[in-house]
Amino acid sequence: MAHHPEALEQLIEAFRLFPGIGLKTAQRLSFYLLGRPREEVVSIARAMVEAKDRLRFCSNCGCLTEADPCTFCTDPRRDRSLICVVQEARDVFILEQTGQYRGLYHVLHGALSPLDGIGPEELHLEKLVRRVEEGEVKELIMATNPNVEGDATAAYIARLMKPYAVKVTRIAFGLPVGGDLEYTDELTLGRALEGRREL
Amino acid sequence: MAHHPEALEQLIEAFRLFPGIGLKTAQRLSFYLLGRPREEVVSIARAMVEAKDRLRFCSNCGCLTEADPCTFCTDPRRDRSLICVVQEARDVFILEQTGQYRGLYHVLHGALSPLDGIGPEELHLEKLVRRVEEGEVKELIMATNPNVEGDATAAYIARLMKPYAVKVTRIAFGLPVGGDLEYTDELTLGRALEGRREL
Repeated sequence: MAHHPEALEQLIEAFRLFPGIGLKTAQRLSFYLLGRPREEVVSIARAMVEAKDRLRFCSNCGCLTEADPCTFCTDPRRDRSLICVVQEARDVFILEQTGQYRGLYHVLHGALSPLDGIGPEELHLEKLVRRVEEGEVKELIMATNPNVEGDATAAYIARLMKPYAVKVTRIAFGLPVGGDLEYTDELTLGRALEGRREL
Repeated sequence: MAHHPEALEQLIEAFRLFPGIGLKTAQRLSFYLLGRPREEVVSIARAMVEAKDRLRFCSNCGCLTEADPCTFCTDPRRDRSLICVVQEARDVFILEQTGQYRGLYHVLHGALSPLDGIGPEELHLEKLVRRVEEGEVKELIMATNPNVEGDATAAYIARLMKPYAVKVTRIAFGLPVGGDLEYTDELTLGRALEGRREL
């Protein structure tokens, strides 16, 4: 990359930080950005910093939110007897897009993965137990990823919940095995919700 | 996208402004960004605005540069008798990556495209004529894109330069190196035959 001006080099490097963005794409995005009006560039930059500053995790369910507790936890129209347990905050928004789920959420912020040194302590589990202990919850739907880590996490939580009067279910394997919740289309995910079975 | 917090919505929309980035990718990039430390987010945002503020087009050749005239135009080691004519500023950097070219550049900032209302006045042509009139240039290499617009632009410039003592050449068309005859389209193969050279 001889002769790239320094500011351009830095912009390209900034884009390359993102997952799945290689050198060619980073160059393409950089040149596109440079061709836009200054106000637009500033507004994109501002959207990034503002999102980082304004968004936090709900102290109750772990969802990404601007207000704490989040709009899911405070919404009186949602079914408080159902909690859908997911690995990441982004999964919540994908589930919302199915339009089929009206319960609450709980974000674990990870999945059990002994090889990566992620045990139960690393997950947002204590709070989940406390939410169940409060007694309002009748069912926990495990919507962790359809892979080894997600399955292990779901099984672990099912065991953890044995002492409580709560049903633990797993979303159905309409999901492509080995895939990632993030890349699933809404229809498949909707079917998977419908077909959930008790663990 | 019901229930996305506003700041997240705005971030996703900001990413969707980029070419080739759809909703899913924008969501993925957004969540990735939110998972990074604040300083990193700020530094990415700053790289964008700084690149926009510091980079301009060279008033002589139209290249993207921090100093005007650019480092190509002022470099005494470059061959001033050669000008490579390209459509976009990014093409300059791709040509530089070959490491084979040591002449100057001229960026047209577009190509002739009557259907899109882009005529000769919309291109950075006047300055090119003036550079040729200065008399130092012996050859113009047309490195516009290998498509209808790029060909038409190259042909137009060749006619435009008829009155001047300057050779106008076109970069070669042919098989991509490392490619396979079987997967080459007929047009490219036709041009490769046309442009054959004695071994």
